[in-house]
Amino acid sequence: MSSFSPLNRGRPHQYHVCDEASRSRIILSTICRLMRPDDANIVGNVHGGNILKMIEEAGCIISTRHCNTQNEDRCVAVLVRVEKTEFLYPLFIGEVAHATAEITYTSQHSLEVQVKVMGENILTGAKKLVNRAVLWYVPCSLQNVDKIMEVPPIKFDAEQEAEGRKRYEAQKTARLKTNDFVEVVPSPSKPEKHTVGFSQSSLIHLVGPSDCTLHDYVHGGVTMKLMDEVAGIVAARHCNTNIVTASVDAINFHRKIKKGCVVTVTGRLTFISNKSMEIEVVVDACSLVDAEKVSYRAVSAFFIFISLDKFGKAQSVPPLKVNGEEEQRRYDEGQARYVMNKAKRLAEKEPKQ
Amino acid sequence: MSSFSPLNRGRPHQYHVCDEASRSRIILSTICRLMRPDDANIVGNVHGGNILKMIEEAGCIISTRHCNTQNEDRCVAVLVRVEKTEFLYPLFIGEVAHATAEITYTSQHSLEVQVKVMGENILTGAKKLVNRAVLWYVPCSLQNVDKIMEVPPIKFDAEQEAEGRKRYEAQKTARLKTNDFVEVVPSPSKPEKHTVGFSQSSLIHLVGPSDCTLHDYVHGGVTMKLMDEVAGIVAARHCNTNIVTASVDAINFHRKIKKGCVVTVTGRLTFISNKSMEIEVVVDACSLVDAEKVSYRAVSAFFIFISLDKFGKAQSVPPLKVNGEEEQRRYDEGQARYVMNKAKRLAEKEPKQ
Amino acid sequence: MSSFSPLNRGRPHQYHVCDEASRSRIILSTICRLMRPDDANIVGNVHGGNILKMIEEAGCIISTRHCNTQNEDRCVAVLVRVEKTEFLYPLFIGEVAHATAEITYTSQHSLEVQVKVMGENILTGAKKLVNRAVLWYVPCSLQNVDKIMEVPPIKFDAEQEAEGRKRYEAQKTARLKTNDFVEVVPSPSKPEKHTVGFSQSSLIHLVGPSDCTLHDYVHGGVTMKLMDEVAGIVAARHCNTNIVTASVDAINFHRKIKKGCVVTVTGRLTFISNKSMEIEVVVDACSLVDAEKVSYRAVSAFFIFISLDKFGKAQSVPPLKVNGEEEQRRYDEGQARYVMNKAKRLAEKEPKQ
Repeated sequence: MSSFSPLNRGRPHQYHVCDEASRSRIILSTICRLMRPDDANIVGNVHGGNILKMIEEAGCIISTRHCNTQNEDRCVAVLVRVEKTEFLYPLFIGEVAHATAEITYTSQHSLEVQVKVMGENILTGAKKLVNRAVLWYVPCSLQNVDKIMEVPPIKFDAEQEAEGRKRYEAQKTARLKTNDFVEVVPSPSKPEKHTVGFSQSSLIHLVGPSDCTLHDYVHGGVTMKLMDEVAGIVAARHCNTNIVTASVDAINFHRKIKKGCVVTVTGRLTFISNKSMEIEVVVDACSLVDAEKVSYRAVSAFFIFISLDKFGKAQSVPPLKVNGEEEQRRYDEGQARYVMNKAKRLAEKEPKQ
Repeated sequence: MSSFSPLNRGRPHQYHVCDEASRSRIILSTICRLMRPDDANIVGNVHGGNILKMIEEAGCIISTRHCNTQNEDRCVAVLVRVEKTEFLYPLFIGEVAHATAEITYTSQHSLEVQVKVMGENILTGAKKLVNRAVLWYVPCSLQNVDKIMEVPPIKFDAEQEAEGRKRYEAQKTARLKTNDFVEVVPSPSKPEKHTVGFSQSSLIHLVGPSDCTLHDYVHGGVTMKLMDEVAGIVAARHCNTNIVTASVDAINFHRKIKKGCVVTVTGRLTFISNKSMEIEVVVDACSLVDAEKVSYRAVSAFFIFISLDKFGKAQSVPPLKVNGEEEQRRYDEGQARYVMNKAKRLAEKEPKQ
Repeated sequence: MSSFSPLNRGRPHQYHVCDEASRSRIILSTICRLMRPDDANIVGNVHGGNILKMIEEAGCIISTRHCNTQNEDRCVAVLVRVEKTEFLYPLFIGEVAHATAEITYTSQHSLEVQVKVMGENILTGAKKLVNRAVLWYVPCSLQNVDKIMEVPPIKFDAEQEAEGRKRYEAQKTARLKTNDFVEVVPSPSKPEKHTVGFSQSSLIHLVGPSDCTLHDYVHGGVTMKLMDEVAGIVAARHCNTNIVTASVDAINFHRKIKKGCVVTVTGRLTFISNKSMEIEVVVDACSLVDAEKVSYRAVSAFFIFISLDKFGKAQSVPPLKVNGEEEQRRYDEGQARYVMNKAKRLAEKEPKQ
């Protein structure tokens, strides 16, 4: 992702462990954790959702810390958007994951955080870059969660400021595109193999205290982990192999989810290329105790999974049997996204003149 | 460490765990744990499913320990049945739960374990009986999980032996009643409030390593916890209040569930009395990686929930709108179970002549 | 216990938990738990930190229970110190750990608890002593956490009382030795292998509800588990082998850590003997939302790790490359502690005349 580069390009690869190092301009924060058996699938690959959750935890800590350096209401930073992010290498049980977060832009009411995840094999000393993600947060007052606070400004140099503002405007536009609430279609009772309905999956989760911020709203990372879990089940049901998360399209967090809600997370295949599967995941939330029980769409996103053979190499995936106009329309849209992303990746690889 | 010794030196080494008390005939084992926020709902009531999980852990430990006192293959005790069990008092965050298990009967290939759960408020010293459950286990060889081992016999006195044999025969008959695999009906897309379809809920869970025994099969307690979670969501969706598990009908574990499976747990209301809701919960399992992906019914049970007002007293529940013959048949069956259980409770309260 | 329900009816309420056995003078409390894959490293050795956490849970339960037997404010016992403790045998996945706590001394405002951890292989019946720890607690009022309550006195016989008082005075003196807040030095960006900077590691953790007591302060056991995790990463980075916790030096809990804080746990090697590594671990806490965001040193301790070969035997460890005066001073201090501990162990093995 080109927007990530400005700060990093040309600088040697650094591994910023100690936060607070250079308070003045750039603020760093690292969380690290040993990957455990429950974090991974049966082959030992750590679920992408656990990495997304770590990324968000690092982002939430650095943003909340920064936004409380002013002297008004205490506040907690709430995730509103994650830019498209790619998983570059798999992580395994026994490795240590380090997520390093850095604030790279501040607007009046939001801040951009870039998080880099390194995987370290502590037995061999080998390190690899696992993921780089860009997240946007807004600070919400602890006294009144609907009040958005001002973000203490950070000074960047002129070029960085200009690049940051461009990214800020772009995400603002992207977030405005309303995501229509499309009712989830229940899968038919006896679906044919390799159809959309065959692998469609839903889970429900009752939001507990550990899922929540100090406001009692669900951490964005918890939601992303549930989404990755459902997407992984859809992918595995379709191809019966070891599958891993390859990338996640930009995710907008339209509405907050409060403690005591039930979230329903549903995933279904939209498009399949030769070696990848695109799965749309939607998150609907509903209070269990409020009288007016309106279920609302809290988040939606596209996850890309790939299927690995026993040597860990990507292998081809059974084609998707598409039924009806609606599925065909969604398939075509998925194909358009696929083609566009491929073109973008190629463009980024080209040397810049 | 020198400071440790004064009390112990000179005294014989003692191993203060109750199960050593009387090895010969009755074997006891207690597990205890502090209840944390994640164990409870937002009002602070510990989920019944966590108590069921503790009960099963205590039962599994005592049974596995006992069945390995012979000199053949090492084995792990696998839960095959839980008798109807009632939650007598709620547990709260900060309380300590003690689950004490005791072997109360042995047949050639199975053993009966009774588990009593006490709740202790360590601030006030108050103690209460929370649950008493009866579980049946069979020992499966670690080398070949399909080989059922012999249970080392425990001698009880003549009366206990006779009573135990009666219970053994009764559960054997009950387990034979095959539970027909009834396909789960997906709920309609826009269900009317207070219908069966309105509150029907499903969750899916990918079985991880910590869910499993040394055989890599799911602990019965893990399954019961998931079942209670779904049933609780169904109940809360129906009445929008604080709900708690009141009791669970006898549960048969028809088939084992292996690591790497996805389990789908579905709950739906079958019957509502004035103050209680009966929810049928079915667990279907399916391997993600096997070629022949046949989903099978692993467990099914009826959970009874009650709705509590803000003072913690049971309150009445909105009636259930029944649609169609099938739902009506299930409702009538639920009512029959309700009437039978009520009569049984009354009979038990009667002084014996 | 002559078994329950059909069986119990008509009998008075009994409460069969071992700690009730001898209420008068010594109070016992046991918690026990099956070790699961997530509790262990990839070779199956249970992390020392999980055992420390169980030890502290048992200690907290027994102390809180005892301190509430008076009739004033309700209180929760807070861990202030753990004496030096050794891991005698490793525990494995599938084994059952029993932590039995006993109150062994009471002063006016504190109490000493000794916890013994037994590991039981329920397949073979083998039992072994895994750890014996001594912990000191003070009761803090639930209404005002800064108010330390009086401890209801327990009568011991004259000799025990005298020995206990000696241990009490010794720990009081030890706790007074101020632990200077030494700023953590960030590791250099390209550290040479086997230097202190090479293996230095930090993790940060956002304190959640399930980490906390009823006061919303972090359980000492949770902190010790994080410390052990960091120390283990440091040790593995230094020697790239399977490492296990051998012992932990006395730990003082200088200051409490509140919910909503971020804790930064940093470990670095101080000294290496032929077969052991000493790692200093410091815990700094910082509120995320308070205006005066002063990071403070909450805990610090030395962990000793050993490296195991594939047969589970201790093997030699690469020597430490020391850079600069400060590291040399710390190395010499570590060596002094090592020599002193060795002498102490030898003295304890000598038969007393």
